[in-house]
Amino acid sequence: METIPLETHLRSLLPVDGTREALITSVIPRLLQSVAAVADALRKAHNVIAAGTANTFGDHQLNVDVTAENLIRNAILNCPSIVKASSEEDPVERPVHPASSSSPTEQYTLAFDPLDGSSIISANWTVGTIFSLWDGASALNQLPSRAQIAAILGVLGPRTTAIIALRMPDTAPSQPVQTCLEVSLDPYTSTWHITRPSLRLSPRSTYFSPANLRAAAEDEAYMSIVNGYITRQYTLRYAGGLVPDVVRMLVQGQGVYLSPATAGSKAKLRRLYELCPLALVVECAGGEAVDPVDGCRVLDKEVRDCGEKGALVCGSAMEVGEAVGKLLVGTGEMGA
Amino acid sequence: METIPLETHLRSLLPVDGTREALITSVIPRLLQSVAAVADALRKAHNVIAAGTANTFGDHQLNVDVTAENLIRNAILNCPSIVKASSEEDPVERPVHPASSSSPTEQYTLAFDPLDGSSIISANWTVGTIFSLWDGASALNQLPSRAQIAAILGVLGPRTTAIIALRMPDTAPSQPVQTCLEVSLDPYTSTWHITRPSLRLSPRSTYFSPANLRAAAEDEAYMSIVNGYITRQYTLRYAGGLVPDVVRMLVQGQGVYLSPATAGSKAKLRRLYELCPLALVVECAGGEAVDPVDGCRVLDKEVRDCGEKGALVCGSAMEVGEAVGKLLVGTGEMGA
Repeated sequence: METIPLETHLRSLLPVDGTREALITSVIPRLLQSVAAVADALRKAHNVIAAGTANTFGDHQLNVDVTAENLIRNAILNCPSIVKASSEEDPVERPVHPASSSSPTEQYTLAFDPLDGSSIISANWTVGTIFSLWDGASALNQLPSRAQIAAILGVLGPRTTAIIALRMPDTAPSQPVQTCLEVSLDPYTSTWHITRPSLRLSPRSTYFSPANLRAAAEDEAYMSIVNGYITRQYTLRYAGGLVPDVVRMLVQGQGVYLSPATAGSKAKLRRLYELCPLALVVECAGGEAVDPVDGCRVLDKEVRDCGEKGALVCGSAMEVGEAVGKLLVGTGEMGA
Repeated sequence: METIPLETHLRSLLPVDGTREALITSVIPRLLQSVAAVADALRKAHNVIAAGTANTFGDHQLNVDVTAENLIRNAILNCPSIVKASSEEDPVERPVHPASSSSPTEQYTLAFDPLDGSSIISANWTVGTIFSLWDGASALNQLPSRAQIAAILGVLGPRTTAIIALRMPDTAPSQPVQTCLEVSLDPYTSTWHITRPSLRLSPRSTYFSPANLRAAAEDEAYMSIVNGYITRQYTLRYAGGLVPDVVRMLVQGQGVYLSPATAGSKAKLRRLYELCPLALVVECAGGEAVDPVDGCRVLDKEVRDCGEKGALVCGSAMEVGEAVGKLLVGTGEMGA
């Protein structure tokens, strides 16, 4: 049974006026190509270990990070529509092409985290690559809910898969474009196949992923939320990598991921490289992504600086609402 | 920098009398070869998804399980020293070779779980293959601490790695053989390199992995243990796959993994295919593996039937002791 090619599928979703032609034919294919390249580099990473003087992968982690960064930077050189890029490894927005280059009709800014999951990579757990794509020549000082039009999560595990989320806020309401799908790499033909054309998060869940759990030691609200899940016999899964944890929810069709912040256990997730793209993915699957410190939707707050960090509760909508409600009461924000 | 070949390294550890020659030159290489084959099959599994009528990996999970089972069964056909085998998919000990085959000097029985981690495989999380190797023509009704001489955990993640644990109880005390090491596959040459020659678990830990957490809803002792870890700000990691969870502890050098049993939430782990090999790995790394229902060491109890299940607390020795102590008090076993 033949599956629909990715490009054909995306074209069927996007406006027919051709205003997103480069996105479909150049930007998304190049980014997926770089995911395949990073996966391949990671598979080879044993060479680094075996050849090096140290015998733990952790010591060479930086090498793999740098390799991934370089592979992605090289991939986007062939993509005229990506005009600026910044990354978690080099968090400054810089032009991708020389100033003399011709100015493309479509212009996008890329923010990326080349290899997310540093705490688990040495154990050979699944890690990820995160891409956030913005309309225009900067991701900064723009409303994410309007300007961030796509996010891709590369999932580097036993297989190589990716989640693609798209949302075009400027599309006519009669033709809304919002999609979240899974593609899988055929390692022999280097072709990506659509394996889950529509990922959906149900409003309720019986799965939970408590990140930054140290915060619960000093935050009664978080402790009470976690104990509530255990008492109600919710299933625990927590890899400690944002990409595998969120992707597991999407594939399961349910889940709640919590990464609150307290005075002693600060917010850990980078807004530009982690929170915004993950929030877009979750929202495109029908879920919610909220900052539990103020109760605001993640995508309603502009990113002012590439280094900003934030807290997060995301996943199944009703679970997110309940958890955020309790966390806000705990900090007294609710009555403010 | 050249690393020592695996065969040379193992030979340097084992008795020089040649009584384990087939183990080194045939059994371990064949089993590692089958790990590489399973990893390859899993990478290709997207074909199953893309070509099938269902579009979730879960629906095709059985296919991948069966493929892994067949790959391993085929690999051991070329290994005369493995005289009997049983697996989680086919839990009956059967002869591997025709009755007319010549009788090898070394005789081993293999018990294996071809693909452990069914709950997380669809999300592209790291999963594992488990091998347990016993002296003689059966794994049943033998003392595991004496008869189970090796265990291999294949780790199928972004890379392909494996943990090899060996213990020869019949070796002279002056020359004890007990080792736990990590090897990594070079996917281009199909060679396994030693990447961590000696894995050790420290007696104390600040990491915890609470499996079967539903049991905590009805077991005050388990709930109190988990809340104790959170209060003391231990780091949570829980993949929900026995191989990735235990391997993470080994690579981190610390951790405690708990899978208790209660009346409402029964023991989940199979003694022959999961508990015994994992216990050997953990003990060979200097940790402990205990059944929290009776406080007995996992390897001190014979397996009577291929289908037996049991509970487990394993990892850093002092953490295991404390947790088991609390669970036994909770069930009243302590005073019995």
